[in-house]
Amino acid sequence: MSFELLAAVDIGGTKVTASVCGPDGILAKVRAPTALRGDNKTLPEQVNQMIHTAARRAGATADAVAAVGVSTASPFERRGESRVVVAPNLCGGLGWSRKQIPNDWTFIPLESELARRYPRVEVGNDAITAAVAERLFGAGRGEDDLLYVTWSTGIGAGAFVDGHLVTGKNDNAVHLGHTLMRLDDERSLEEGWQEADNLESFVSGPAIARQYGAGQDTLEVFKRCREGDPKAARIIEQAARAFARALVNATTLFDTKLIIVGGSVANDWDILEPLVLAEYRAGNPFFVGNVEFRRSALERYLGDLAGLSTVMPEAWQERWQEQRPWERAPEAAEMDDDGQ
Amino acid sequence: MSFELLAAVDIGGTKVTASVCGPDGILAKVRAPTALRGDNKTLPEQVNQMIHTAARRAGATADAVAAVGVSTASPFERRGESRVVVAPNLCGGLGWSRKQIPNDWTFIPLESELARRYPRVEVGNDAITAAVAERLFGAGRGEDDLLYVTWSTGIGAGAFVDGHLVTGKNDNAVHLGHTLMRLDDERSLEEGWQEADNLESFVSGPAIARQYGAGQDTLEVFKRCREGDPKAARIIEQAARAFARALVNATTLFDTKLIIVGGSVANDWDILEPLVLAEYRAGNPFFVGNVEFRRSALERYLGDLAGLSTVMPEAWQERWQEQRPWERAPEAAEMDDDGQ
Repeated sequence: MSFELLAAVDIGGTKVTASVCGPDGILAKVRAPTALRGDNKTLPEQVNQMIHTAARRAGATADAVAAVGVSTASPFERRGESRVVVAPNLCGGLGWSRKQIPNDWTFIPLESELARRYPRVEVGNDAITAAVAERLFGAGRGEDDLLYVTWSTGIGAGAFVDGHLVTGKNDNAVHLGHTLMRLDDERSLEEGWQEADNLESFVSGPAIARQYGAGQDTLEVFKRCREGDPKAARIIEQAARAFARALVNATTLFDTKLIIVGGSVANDWDILEPLVLAEYRAGNPFFVGNVEFRRSALERYLGDLAGLSTVMPEAWQERWQEQRPWERAPEAAEMDDDGQ
Repeated sequence: MSFELLAAVDIGGTKVTASVCGPDGILAKVRAPTALRGDNKTLPEQVNQMIHTAARRAGATADAVAAVGVSTASPFERRGESRVVVAPNLCGGLGWSRKQIPNDWTFIPLESELARRYPRVEVGNDAITAAVAERLFGAGRGEDDLLYVTWSTGIGAGAFVDGHLVTGKNDNAVHLGHTLMRLDDERSLEEGWQEADNLESFVSGPAIARQYGAGQDTLEVFKRCREGDPKAARIIEQAARAFARALVNATTLFDTKLIIVGGSVANDWDILEPLVLAEYRAGNPFFVGNVEFRRSALERYLGDLAGLSTVMPEAWQERWQEQRPWERAPEAAEMDDDGQ
């Protein structure tokens, strides 16, 4: 196999990182604020520019990039042959986000724009691509039936079933944070329920802070819980139990063997673990019995590894598994959002 | 390809059917009450005897049976290399069922016992094998992302994602009836919740009858709903809405494109459909938008086709799709549960 470069891209609501890798490791990395002004091809062009810059910093050119693996905020919609990004935190025109997004795009043609420039492009949701990375390089090595779940400002997840990555018709599968945990029979349909009853709306980090109130953030609620504050303890317990029930449901649908937990809220896993496991283990033993929980092994490296894992050639994998070069990646160089 | 026979077996809590098929259709079929006395190899031996009898009635012998496809009550547990059946309605020793089962088995070594006698054996849960049949021969032809759900005395389901049959670590995937639909935060863990909060416990046919009370069965509750009985209408509406929310959750996890509905309760689909769809369509459009609902196309033929579909050679499939020989299957001959 001739020497080639791969690019890995991670797109979130506030920042984008792009790194360029060779067979032995990550050669260069750049970071920039997410481009949210311009038109709906601005962000794909930003990504392209960042790949060029990272390639240049690696002493190469973007022509050497054989494949680009992108991990991005989602969901996706299918438009003809390709999928477009319809993430509420990137597309202001969707009008869904509580935060004002300074554009009126309703979709981003990320896949098709990159596919015009690079021989191979894989675009996946950040949690699904993280599941790929955890299975190749992290806490899920060798496991065919695993669920990766990130508990953070939202709740995302990715799954393998029978060794098959679960993606679904539009690659929107395993949006665990959007599963409904209540019936609320009394509420009329006209009021709508999707936002109020889904897991994320009362279990995410911001939801924990909101329920506590008093202007405190999620970290402070956990700190107060440690100090014995009964209100903080009660809110965290309720969140943990709801989270556990959502995991019971995912287990029941996927017949999962291993659950890998990551995300910023799970940094307080010492508090959460006994609460989550007590509720989870009360589930039907035919489904939840013997299911193992592990912490994410890649957490801080997922920005590099999630997208990369979706395009990494088999020939490279063993070396990366043995040598873990992501731990020695260069610091990201900061760029402007116009790619300079 | 030389002429071979296939056997299809359907195992429920009260009856077993076995049929023997050639490339052109179902040649013979036998039915017997499920053997629930003896030891835990009695049921596998009953199945074996029934295959022998059906083969004989087809003018052949069981030696000609190249593969056996079994659709059975589940769940399964893995024991070493094979899986055993641990269905509460077959294994009295599990002590789970409300009905008294006249044996003390805790598992049935169905797969290993049949594998000793036939060259190829596939054992699957009845709803998962039904999904295979619907995709090959029924309402799911050509669809890669589908959910089959049966709404009956229980609620079972099977799914394909990206063209891949979802089975999971022990082939227990997609037990939709066991997903939890409530949080019930007030209840203490010690009381347990798995039976009371899962979908099946308040939405199944028997649960609808139980909620109505007055000694009425499910059919009568639907009949009274048609006659304008407000209590019947309310119970059915609540069941339909909970069912719809479970479908929203399955859609959100599998990113499903098509939902196929079967089962005896769904015989009243004209009443249920508007209720289910109104609630379902209120879900997050990124996930539930454009998802299509269809009725099962094979309902009364699944006893023959579910197990059969898991072992049918590709070379036969087109002919079966065109000629639909299952519609001309012979009547089942009744046998005793000792195989006579």
